[in-house]
Amino acid sequence: MKAAIARNGTIHVEDIPPPEPGSGQVLVRTRHCGICGSDLHALTHGAAMMEEPLSPLMAPTDFSSGVVMGHEFCAEIVDFGPDTERALKPGALVCSMPMALHNGQVHTVGYSNELPGGYAEFMVLNEMLLLPVPSGLDARTAALTEPMAVGTHAVERANLGGGEVLLVIGCGPVGLAVISALKVRECGPVVAADFSPLRRQMAERCGADVVVDPAEASPYQTWVELSQPAGYDPAALENLFAGENSPLRPTVAFECVGVPGVLATMMQACPRDSRIVVVGVCMEEDRIRPLQAIARELNLQFVLGYSPEEFAATLAQIESGALDIGHWITGEVGIDGIAGAFAELASPNAHAKILVTPS
Amino acid sequence: MKAAIARNGTIHVEDIPPPEPGSGQVLVRTRHCGICGSDLHALTHGAAMMEEPLSPLMAPTDFSSGVVMGHEFCAEIVDFGPDTERALKPGALVCSMPMALHNGQVHTVGYSNELPGGYAEFMVLNEMLLLPVPSGLDARTAALTEPMAVGTHAVERANLGGGEVLLVIGCGPVGLAVISALKVRECGPVVAADFSPLRRQMAERCGADVVVDPAEASPYQTWVELSQPAGYDPAALENLFAGENSPLRPTVAFECVGVPGVLATMMQACPRDSRIVVVGVCMEEDRIRPLQAIARELNLQFVLGYSPEEFAATLAQIESGALDIGHWITGEVGIDGIAGAFAELASPNAHAKILVTPS
Repeated sequence: MKAAIARNGTIHVEDIPPPEPGSGQVLVRTRHCGICGSDLHALTHGAAMMEEPLSPLMAPTDFSSGVVMGHEFCAEIVDFGPDTERALKPGALVCSMPMALHNGQVHTVGYSNELPGGYAEFMVLNEMLLLPVPSGLDARTAALTEPMAVGTHAVERANLGGGEVLLVIGCGPVGLAVISALKVRECGPVVAADFSPLRRQMAERCGADVVVDPAEASPYQTWVELSQPAGYDPAALENLFAGENSPLRPTVAFECVGVPGVLATMMQACPRDSRIVVVGVCMEEDRIRPLQAIARELNLQFVLGYSPEEFAATLAQIESGALDIGHWITGEVGIDGIAGAFAELASPNAHAKILVTPS
Repeated sequence: MKAAIARNGTIHVEDIPPPEPGSGQVLVRTRHCGICGSDLHALTHGAAMMEEPLSPLMAPTDFSSGVVMGHEFCAEIVDFGPDTERALKPGALVCSMPMALHNGQVHTVGYSNELPGGYAEFMVLNEMLLLPVPSGLDARTAALTEPMAVGTHAVERANLGGGEVLLVIGCGPVGLAVISALKVRECGPVVAADFSPLRRQMAERCGADVVVDPAEASPYQTWVELSQPAGYDPAALENLFAGENSPLRPTVAFECVGVPGVLATMMQACPRDSRIVVVGVCMEEDRIRPLQAIARELNLQFVLGYSPEEFAATLAQIESGALDIGHWITGEVGIDGIAGAFAELASPNAHAKILVTPS
């Protein structure tokens, strides 16, 4: 089968044997697979990524020996391996968390040396993780379940109590997923910031209440002002001991960039008692000034991924129309176009999400 | 009056005019004042400290023009300024949060250019913040209210739900206050770690259940093992999807060192879903690897100070004997001995808390 192999920082299209479904596994044909920013990171920082395995149970990945990436997929059942229940039939469209149990180890589909991801014509998935795509839901939109589930999870972990004023820094796919997850819960106001006009436009379409170009104005200032009641005087002495009687609305910010320096900038700008939910995946070492967080008693919640329940709930919300996210897709390529799409995605102005359609 | 003046990194004893109580203020004679690690920091990093004012309402401090430090005090009422209620009488022993309203600005007593702190014979305090020291409570022990309140607040902000396994890294006065605050709430087990034998001994006396010398063994390993039920197999595959059904006890760690690098070490060692409460005040830039926190979905809560309610509750717990902390005091000096005490406190093996007794 045709597959895009990432090896030592470059991507080449090769012809490799299709995978064979083992015990409990299903052979599927990849219909569509989104290109994730993490794949761009992994191509250049793969080794750093592997220094922090999600669990000691995960199989290690060697990015120098060849990986078929792609973990945001919608696929079609082709065949069944042994020990499968076969409740779904060949031809059925499915989504799945990109995890697979294989030879006694857990693999991330799309970051495995043994199992190909969605940048190939075929994959094997674990039957127990398959979710049928409801009839009527477009396979392209269904492929957005994985990146959208990241937003669902981030908002769950933000532990919102209601009444928060929200800030989303960065409106790439991660930021758009967070904005969408906030709005489907009717949280707000949501202030969103990105230097890219395309991304700001998409943030607005996802429901952001105020969209700011950081080159023009401070998103932090807008956010802070929205947390203050009319006529609030920040210089009034009684504010110092207001404690629980403070008239300020709570402030929560989402870091959706994942580049060194962003967290430090946010920590400097956050008002007292803010929570920062770190959703962007910064692979490099970063520098912070702890005194800024201490002086304002900030809380930092780092998040990753989603639970099986969150993944299934996200697919259901996409199917019901509660989450309207099909507009994220700004491009589509075949397997031959993946290397070019990676290059295009390095610039934030051209695209939000590019889908790979192998066949 | 005699006072120890910190200026440009050194401390000199000088004779300065005693302060005069203004509107709502009370003149007090300093009975005892603890030397805080923050004072050692401020002597060398004063300018950095001022870059992050607690509030825009706070008066700025210029450490080059002279500061009488000392904010952990027990004092005796001498005289009253105008507009005071005078419910307490001259001679009464009092504690106070080290805050004062002065000329329309808020000052931290002990970090102010206008108001002397407890390293002088006299101070002025705001009458509304005075707490009478209950009769029978030793003035020396009462002076420990402020450092102990830091532990009370840190444990409040840790937001414990019960059942947590706790780790305290660093058993200087901040760590001892956290351990004491945990044990007075009957939280545990508490694992405490410090390289200093004296501090480990004091941690044990404060109630730490397991005390570890990091030069001999990993405190993190002990802590993690205590969070696992008997017979738990970290390599068992079902752990990966256990989610809320995980048999592991929640893990919370307190950073009580405040030196660059400690937070990164803790982030690397913390199990999944741990909370790190940052109580130590690191004044320098620090480096972290966000991927470590992301991969394990860590939560960081930075804390500082205490509320008026926490301060008063701490004094009440000391008075009732629920908090038995008098043993923290390992030395006592006069104003002339402050510079020498600062030098002694730079080594962690000689002392926990040194009190200054001006008269």
